[in-house]
Amino acid sequence: MNKPFNPHNCSEDWLSNDFLQKKGEFAYNWASRSMTIIEKIVKKNIKNQPLTGLKVGLCLHITKETSVLAMALNKLGAETSICSANPLSVQKEIAFHLANNNIKVFAKPDETVDQYHEFMHRVLNENPDIITDDGGELHSLAHDKATKSHKFIGGTEETTSGFHRLKIIESKSQLKYPVIVVNNALTKHLFDNRYGTGQSTVDGLLRITGIFLPGKHVVICGFGWVGKGISAILKGYGCKITITEVNPVNALEAFMEGFNVCKLDEAAPIGDVFITCTGQIGVIRKEHIEKMKDGVFLANVGHFDVEIDTEYLYKHDPCHKEISENITCFSLDQKKVYLLAKGRVLNLVGGKGHSSEVMALSFANQLLSIVYLSKNHNKLENKIYSVPQEIDKMVADYALGSYNIKIDKLTKKQKKYQGLLK
Amino acid sequence: MNKPFNPHNCSEDWLSNDFLQKKGEFAYNWASRSMTIIEKIVKKNIKNQPLTGLKVGLCLHITKETSVLAMALNKLGAETSICSANPLSVQKEIAFHLANNNIKVFAKPDETVDQYHEFMHRVLNENPDIITDDGGELHSLAHDKATKSHKFIGGTEETTSGFHRLKIIESKSQLKYPVIVVNNALTKHLFDNRYGTGQSTVDGLLRITGIFLPGKHVVICGFGWVGKGISAILKGYGCKITITEVNPVNALEAFMEGFNVCKLDEAAPIGDVFITCTGQIGVIRKEHIEKMKDGVFLANVGHFDVEIDTEYLYKHDPCHKEISENITCFSLDQKKVYLLAKGRVLNLVGGKGHSSEVMALSFANQLLSIVYLSKNHNKLENKIYSVPQEIDKMVADYALGSYNIKIDKLTKKQKKYQGLLK
Amino acid sequence: MNKPFNPHNCSEDWLSNDFLQKKGEFAYNWASRSMTIIEKIVKKNIKNQPLTGLKVGLCLHITKETSVLAMALNKLGAETSICSANPLSVQKEIAFHLANNNIKVFAKPDETVDQYHEFMHRVLNENPDIITDDGGELHSLAHDKATKSHKFIGGTEETTSGFHRLKIIESKSQLKYPVIVVNNALTKHLFDNRYGTGQSTVDGLLRITGIFLPGKHVVICGFGWVGKGISAILKGYGCKITITEVNPVNALEAFMEGFNVCKLDEAAPIGDVFITCTGQIGVIRKEHIEKMKDGVFLANVGHFDVEIDTEYLYKHDPCHKEISENITCFSLDQKKVYLLAKGRVLNLVGGKGHSSEVMALSFANQLLSIVYLSKNHNKLENKIYSVPQEIDKMVADYALGSYNIKIDKLTKKQKKYQGLLK
Amino acid sequence: MNKPFNPHNCSEDWLSNDFLQKKGEFAYNWASRSMTIIEKIVKKNIKNQPLTGLKVGLCLHITKETSVLAMALNKLGAETSICSANPLSVQKEIAFHLANNNIKVFAKPDETVDQYHEFMHRVLNENPDIITDDGGELHSLAHDKATKSHKFIGGTEETTSGFHRLKIIESKSQLKYPVIVVNNALTKHLFDNRYGTGQSTVDGLLRITGIFLPGKHVVICGFGWVGKGISAILKGYGCKITITEVNPVNALEAFMEGFNVCKLDEAAPIGDVFITCTGQIGVIRKEHIEKMKDGVFLANVGHFDVEIDTEYLYKHDPCHKEISENITCFSLDQKKVYLLAKGRVLNLVGGKGHSSEVMALSFANQLLSIVYLSKNHNKLENKIYSVPQEIDKMVADYALGSYNIKIDKLTKKQKKYQGLLK
Repeated sequence: MNKPFNPHNCSEDWLSNDFLQKKGEFAYNWASRSMTIIEKIVKKNIKNQPLTGLKVGLCLHITKETSVLAMALNKLGAETSICSANPLSVQKEIAFHLANNNIKVFAKPDETVDQYHEFMHRVLNENPDIITDDGGELHSLAHDKATKSHKFIGGTEETTSGFHRLKIIESKSQLKYPVIVVNNALTKHLFDNRYGTGQSTVDGLLRITGIFLPGKHVVICGFGWVGKGISAILKGYGCKITITEVNPVNALEAFMEGFNVCKLDEAAPIGDVFITCTGQIGVIRKEHIEKMKDGVFLANVGHFDVEIDTEYLYKHDPCHKEISENITCFSLDQKKVYLLAKGRVLNLVGGKGHSSEVMALSFANQLLSIVYLSKNHNKLENKIYSVPQEIDKMVADYALGSYNIKIDKLTKKQKKYQGLLK
Repeated sequence: MNKPFNPHNCSEDWLSNDFLQKKGEFAYNWASRSMTIIEKIVKKNIKNQPLTGLKVGLCLHITKETSVLAMALNKLGAETSICSANPLSVQKEIAFHLANNNIKVFAKPDETVDQYHEFMHRVLNENPDIITDDGGELHSLAHDKATKSHKFIGGTEETTSGFHRLKIIESKSQLKYPVIVVNNALTKHLFDNRYGTGQSTVDGLLRITGIFLPGKHVVICGFGWVGKGISAILKGYGCKITITEVNPVNALEAFMEGFNVCKLDEAAPIGDVFITCTGQIGVIRKEHIEKMKDGVFLANVGHFDVEIDTEYLYKHDPCHKEISENITCFSLDQKKVYLLAKGRVLNLVGGKGHSSEVMALSFANQLLSIVYLSKNHNKLENKIYSVPQEIDKMVADYALGSYNIKIDKLTKKQKKYQGLLK
Repeated sequence: MNKPFNPHNCSEDWLSNDFLQKKGEFAYNWASRSMTIIEKIVKKNIKNQPLTGLKVGLCLHITKETSVLAMALNKLGAETSICSANPLSVQKEIAFHLANNNIKVFAKPDETVDQYHEFMHRVLNENPDIITDDGGELHSLAHDKATKSHKFIGGTEETTSGFHRLKIIESKSQLKYPVIVVNNALTKHLFDNRYGTGQSTVDGLLRITGIFLPGKHVVICGFGWVGKGISAILKGYGCKITITEVNPVNALEAFMEGFNVCKLDEAAPIGDVFITCTGQIGVIRKEHIEKMKDGVFLANVGHFDVEIDTEYLYKHDPCHKEISENITCFSLDQKKVYLLAKGRVLNLVGGKGHSSEVMALSFANQLLSIVYLSKNHNKLENKIYSVPQEIDKMVADYALGSYNIKIDKLTKKQKKYQGLLK
Repeated sequence: MNKPFNPHNCSEDWLSNDFLQKKGEFAYNWASRSMTIIEKIVKKNIKNQPLTGLKVGLCLHITKETSVLAMALNKLGAETSICSANPLSVQKEIAFHLANNNIKVFAKPDETVDQYHEFMHRVLNENPDIITDDGGELHSLAHDKATKSHKFIGGTEETTSGFHRLKIIESKSQLKYPVIVVNNALTKHLFDNRYGTGQSTVDGLLRITGIFLPGKHVVICGFGWVGKGISAILKGYGCKITITEVNPVNALEAFMEGFNVCKLDEAAPIGDVFITCTGQIGVIRKEHIEKMKDGVFLANVGHFDVEIDTEYLYKHDPCHKEISENITCFSLDQKKVYLLAKGRVLNLVGGKGHSSEVMALSFANQLLSIVYLSKNHNKLENKIYSVPQEIDKMVADYALGSYNIKIDKLTKKQKKYQGLLK
């Protein structure tokens, strides 16, 4: 083993800790086992070393899945550095494993918000050519701090939230490099957002509360792919479901799926559990909380902890109690309201986040997009791009392959019928 | 009552038939009852008579829902003529009702294929300004027959099949007027294709075969919105479901919904019922049929009857029998294969087609698109257009209104957060 | 062909009608195809002719499935006569087919209620040894009319409704022969009531109304097996479901399945469709109807047409109209209420009744119970019996066999563990 | 606080541990919050103190829900002692909380199997009048050790497994006191087994493995209420499901629910996860494991760890590794097999066991049955009894009440119709 990189002056104890070393390695291997897509992409490209000479700066949740992506980047020739997309989401053994494997890790388990910001700067100081972000924070910083001396060749972004932030920058013609937004890929949002966040949200809810789901009335704010995923699973548990939306098409869809659809105002008094997944700010507000029943649970799975008006809660009950891990109890006018995971991403904080298997789809898009940027950045403008369709399709093909599923091909006659052949 | 228009020399008996008159009127009223969206659009626009002076030529299935659209066009000022989109889908009482209400009807219940084509010519001879088609047949004819003397100002198209035909014309730069393809509207395909075709397909299957669904293995070729809709309903009945696809993303989605996904070749020996909904040609072929079990049912819900290789069936068993309405039995090498509705659209031929309520969504898009064309045709190029987003959203709003559902509006703070306000 | 029996002086035209003959034969064959269980039972017992010398009197709905049972009885040696369990449920071609095949048919398609009763007497006049009934009507009559000169050796009963009537007779110690109630068999009610009535109820609803199901709020009165079956299917269609119950255990089950559970009083104003399946009298009453929305559908699938207070409806709107087949429209104080199938069994009158395949399970229990009675009647008391467990299990085994499903057997070690072996 | 009872010489540290005291109290309160049924029963009976003078010996999993039952017994006057139903299921803070509240606790978190047995003896040495058991172990011991000097007045039993053991004793006429088997109550098995074990099994599976469920093929051995519950939830997650059974009726039901049904032999090569819930011994055996794919998970939720042949696994790979908590990896002929929770009850060991809310149903039956025994033991024989119907119904009523659900009552006319009134 090379001498591991030790960015933040960890004690030697940490780096030579046998237990952490094994735990981190096991976690990496266990994730790899479910992420065979990444392994296949590496296998196919390793000879050409397409990322040689490139520096990639990652700002991602430091999980075992991220370790698989980071290691894959290195295997394809990149020099990789990483900081965490959220101060709460650093897993110690993973940070350790990466640091032990030639990746520059600027993150630690109990990092403060200040450290979290400092670590982002440290990644930028490495002068990455490509930035891969989850939430748009590092992209924002890169735009603030970009100097003439350093030129980024491109970036990728994992989430819708990040996309919205980049959209604003782009609208002012201030984007400094092309960014491929992975979230728009079919093989990302149709699966990661729906099935991945769906499963991990329910997992987080159960781990934190141990609530008995059959018969519970769950109000889901937002019927995008995440809301669709959560509601489908909860239906299987026997929950009653109410959907609130601002988009009439989504609302109509929810209605025809058999869900109750109404304003949050009307849903407030009947829900047992409220889950926000809108990407919006200020969704559950004072006026809603006031109408709720005693003993409700409030949770958020949107990227930022702005969907529930927690400020109101903290202000209204300064004596709130953390009654168990990730449950804060507020006593408001004769009733109790339980806030889960402090209103932060329930599925990451409360559960174990997405399964490796579904992360593999997103990260395959990331990996192939990074390779794509390395080859095509000269042809691209400083704009937001979707994942190229051929990459999207390629990821789906890899995924079916990993499940040993074979599907039909168009016959010659069919191609002709479809106008694909003359 | 005005003297009814009588296009094809029907006997006076027909036009004065009291029973048919009442039946047609009832059907129209019964459909109107479920199509309050159309009524609301008419109400909002009737003062301005936006279609005054315009001739609209319709080529649609002659059903009670179509009668609601046709009457709405007339109420908004249009002069409307109609022929059938399929020689088998003319409902006598509806044709009668329309003919009795100032609509020029070129269609009759038992029309031959020759008459079907002749009737399309008759509609064109009326020199319509706008053509509204279902399948693209009338658009094709309009392009073949278009003379310099007559200028179309625009067209609309209901189906994917029609879209594909128009796409080919457009790709040769031969499109002679702008066409709005309604199928692309979210409020069309998310609902009509999924829930509408889903329900009517199962309805058609049950009416024709009376098959007991629990435990049956149904193979669905195609997992677009139609396939998604059918499979969701059949799951509720306790069917086992196998999906075949050529698109890897759709295939992966089907897999994660819990369906079996494989090549048709592998599905052939295990299915009890096979339903095609691909929009493709030659999907179920000789090599598949040969592997099937004794007693399977074959059905198609794609627009054209080209998805099942019926030619092979007829050739292989010249003595096939129509054993009951819409079931043709073929005896092939020791086994029987039952073809439903001759391989034509199962849900229209075998069932009663889409419910009025879901047709209202499509037809609201049609109606608003026709009004849009009447106002904006000068600004449009001779291209294929999607339904404008504001119309799509408007239809969803009308629909929610018709169900008395109110949804949340973005707050000022949220609009700002989303970058919609400064 | 033997000279057919012609019980009610049909014209020769009827009996020599070639079309009816073919139609009846086809229907019988089509049903047989899905009722291979019956065929297997016949095959296994035909050598011994266990029913030789016995007269069996049937009072069943005259459908193609009944023809398979009746023919099976004859094949096993019985002399069979039949009348209809409901004056509306006689299918002409089936009556014809049976009459042409040595079964004494006392039924005709358009029989009046008087004829219906007369025909029951005619069956009794044949002096049957065993009575097989659906609803308990013929059993009641048999008890009223039983003379000393004729001794019944046993009876079977298909429905819960019949069971209740027999229970009252038994409670007065007036039962004149042992009756095996087929409904209690697991292989009957778990399948016939749940899946069979479930599917045919939805089928009847769709055929009569053509209603678009997604998003509809359906109120189901009764959460026994029938209610469970209907609700599971409607959930798949995207309906919202409210259950009303008088039994707290069933109510709790419905709640945990995710359904809304409340008093009918509270459900009345929110339902779009109301379906009764309780076996009770006077379930939907004046006070409920008054609270309903405009345009609701009322339907019953309980055996008797007593679950909806139709008397109130007819009285309140003497000018009600039959607006289409099986829809009666009542105008009540500013709103319209649509009664389906006159409040009679929706699935039989409106749909095509149960699929042959599920009827095969019930009728296999009937057939084996009749054979059982023929052998064991001497050992039985004049009581109500359940289907013997070994018959129940045998039917399940036959059914699995007909689907080519093989299941595990207990190992020696497992039998020992379970205390079945020493 | 009274001086706490300290049965097994815990250090004073343990008993004065402030953290544990608060944790145990919180857990008790948190559970009570979801077990309002128990509270209501206590409230209704507390005046009469029906259990005064009675000693109750409990052998249950030492969880927060059990603490609610134990405290309720004391509140109604009983003197209660408790040992654990499983050496692995003792929760320290609960043991602590009970010991601090006048309940004699013979259990500790890390008890050995020897201690586990010794603790059962200690409970018996308290000379309980009534024994409440989970698994039948304490009942067995009570029968072995019963002396003439001590007379039990009755017992209750929670599980099917315990029921089977008692059945064997009863069949030899050796039962020494009446036992009420709670599992037979509708309000127990319909809810606890189905929804409770269903949810906690999936929870355990996710906590231990983090497996991504959509698309996974899960083989469930046993389609009793537990199998039904697990499969319904997994269906909602998008799993493919295969059921194996030895009971043909259950198998047929699974088939009609749309599940794949076959012999375990055929299921072995296609499953990703195998879950046993049969109550049987030796279900997954060498011959099945040999046919499985690489990387499968094996889990059991039956009461005893005899359903999977773990002996074979341990023998075949003596170098097996505990790769993470509750996952043991066996390397067998080129493939890996992962055994979860050592083949012990997955939902208790891996998850957090049943939700308090569903346990409340079982424990309400327990509590009311114990009260019933205290009043009626003289009238009962030394036999196995079901929970009296009136208790069952009462529990359902309490449960509906706790959800604020009101249901219809039979009208006078309906009671008469049903023969309940004259």
